Amino acid sequence: MMNRASMNEPGMNEQRQPTREGVRAAADAIGAILPPTPLLPLEIAGAKGWAKAESLQPIGAFKIRGAWWRLSNLTDEERAAGVVAVSSGNHAQGVAWAARRLGIAATIVMPRDAPQVKLDATRALGADLVLYDRPGEDRDDVAARVIGEKGGTLVHAFGDPWVIEGQGSAGIEIARQLGRAPTRIVACCGGGGLAAGLALACPDSAIQIVEPHGWDMVGQAIARGEIVQAATDAPATICDALQPTATKQLNLDLLRGRAQAGVTVTDAEVRTAQVFAFSKLNLVLEPGGAAALGAALAGKVPVDEGTAIMLTGGNADPARFAETLLAAGEA
Amino acid sequence: MMNRASMNEPGMNEQRQPTREGVRAAADAIGAILPPTPLLPLEIAGAKGWAKAESLQPIGAFKIRGAWWRLSNLTDEERAAGVVAVSSGNHAQGVAWAARRLGIAATIVMPRDAPQVKLDATRALGADLVLYDRPGEDRDDVAARVIGEKGGTLVHAFGDPWVIEGQGSAGIEIARQLGRAPTRIVACCGGGGLAAGLALACPDSAIQIVEPHGWDMVGQAIARGEIVQAATDAPATICDALQPTATKQLNLDLLRGRAQAGVTVTDAEVRTAQVFAFSKLNLVLEPGGAAALGAALAGKVPVDEGTAIMLTGGNADPARFAETLLAAGEA
Repeated sequence: MMNRASMNEPGMNEQRQPTREGVRAAADAIGAILPPTPLLPLEIAGAKGWAKAESLQPIGAFKIRGAWWRLSNLTDEERAAGVVAVSSGNHAQGVAWAARRLGIAATIVMPRDAPQVKLDATRALGADLVLYDRPGEDRDDVAARVIGEKGGTLVHAFGDPWVIEGQGSAGIEIARQLGRAPTRIVACCGGGGLAAGLALACPDSAIQIVEPHGWDMVGQAIARGEIVQAATDAPATICDALQPTATKQLNLDLLRGRAQAGVTVTDAEVRTAQVFAFSKLNLVLEPGGAAALGAALAGKVPVDEGTAIMLTGGNADPARFAETLLAAGEA
Repeated sequence: MMNRASMNEPGMNEQRQPTREGVRAAADAIGAILPPTPLLPLEIAGAKGWAKAESLQPIGAFKIRGAWWRLSNLTDEERAAGVVAVSSGNHAQGVAWAARRLGIAATIVMPRDAPQVKLDATRALGADLVLYDRPGEDRDDVAARVIGEKGGTLVHAFGDPWVIEGQGSAGIEIARQLGRAPTRIVACCGGGGLAAGLALACPDSAIQIVEPHGWDMVGQAIARGEIVQAATDAPATICDALQPTATKQLNLDLLRGRAQAGVTVTDAEVRTAQVFAFSKLNLVLEPGGAAALGAALAGKVPVDEGTAIMLTGGNADPARFAETLLAAGEA
């Protein structure tokens, strides 16, 4: 019998190169089970643009795309052995959702300080949770230990060819909804899975990534041409979904020369975007899901009628969201 | 020259009978400028159903449908004379939105105590506002006075054949999205424009109306077989969008024998629905837009896979919404 743990290491998956054809196939597979999320018109400082409301996916985030595409491409043998994922919450829910639908056992490694709403939602989808302390423990080490003990395929949150192709399906949808390729896609960026997928999906579109201040691990990697680890004293951010320890070589290879980096947002800019989405779009966005919109509202990225701003997630903590609304009213 | 005021009284419009053909034509016209709002899956106490997110329309409410259909059916002469509407806010925004797009002058009669967000949004769409005191003044009297002074066509919020047909287009969309006629549509109900339109749109579907406690003017009218005026001492409700002084004969005629009435919701049930929509759907709903969902969550109406619950509006006051979230967290 094969050793499933070693067979399914990220290094193995990285040998499969994600392709635009793969993104198109992913879009077909995802379109067969999930209706397109709305592309909503918005106006920022007189400029018209578009918002892609991935916050309205069944799990409240775009992560359902990559998870579905990865899990539906597992072999029967791999399905039987189950999957393991590492996530602060949205990828966790995506994998748990896809696993439940496909009848696959899922174990999710999550940081103990992940938002309660995300911990609860992942459990409710039937996944086993293994909690770890961020930043004390390395989450990939925890995942490797779980796989060593229980077996199963690691579904990496961003450094996986199928996951990248799945996330890219959002770009195919945007082009269909606009009736043409967008001139620019502004994307919230954590590890770079979505951005890499969008770069493949829309080869003629500018891909502008937006990262939280101090957590621009993709932007720094693009600038330096090599993987950069997050500083151990990186500043706090409210964008819990956008705190990668580092991007992966696969993502960097796909994004170098394709993605425009260098834009980061502050917590205040993110909160402004959450309030804007509430007031103007009637959408609930979590902080990490509002980063791209925050950059647009702050004038850090241009917006025009060919611009699509990714609203990547909406799993917000109610009490923190209420505080944000009240603080905005007092400002 | 004709007397526009007398020519465009509600009584005249009521001579045109809204039809299912009219609803289908409205759906085509509206579909040409507004993409379908999402039909989102939801689960209530283990039962799966659907939520029609009309809160994601450009003005944040379904009212854009009826307003667009009415205004785009005005003659050139009528367009030149402008339109007058009476509304607590969402119909106001719908008429203002359609008027701006068609280059028609709009005067909107709104209660002085309408939510500030709705007053501001209506002004921002370029309409002239005339404020009145609720309940001291009769809003229809104020509108008649405005028309007497300035001329123009009254666009009634619910007692108008085109408005009814326009609102009904949501039912056509739901049937297309489900791939079949819904077995049941649960609709928030104020004056009965949406419900009447849905009854025409989906002749084989049960139409369950949901009204705020003490403001069941459609339900009472159906029960008694005649128009019933709201009590002068009707209880307060947080559903500002669902406070009609009475329904109209046109609506009653379309709803008798077609709509199921008798279900009302309390403020607490509405708030529970707002919190559910926030947490489970990542949607912002205003109180009046959450009434149908509130009834479903309270077990007052059945939910199954053929059930579509209308989420009719999302123009919520941020401070009140924050209080609702915080109170739910403490409960």
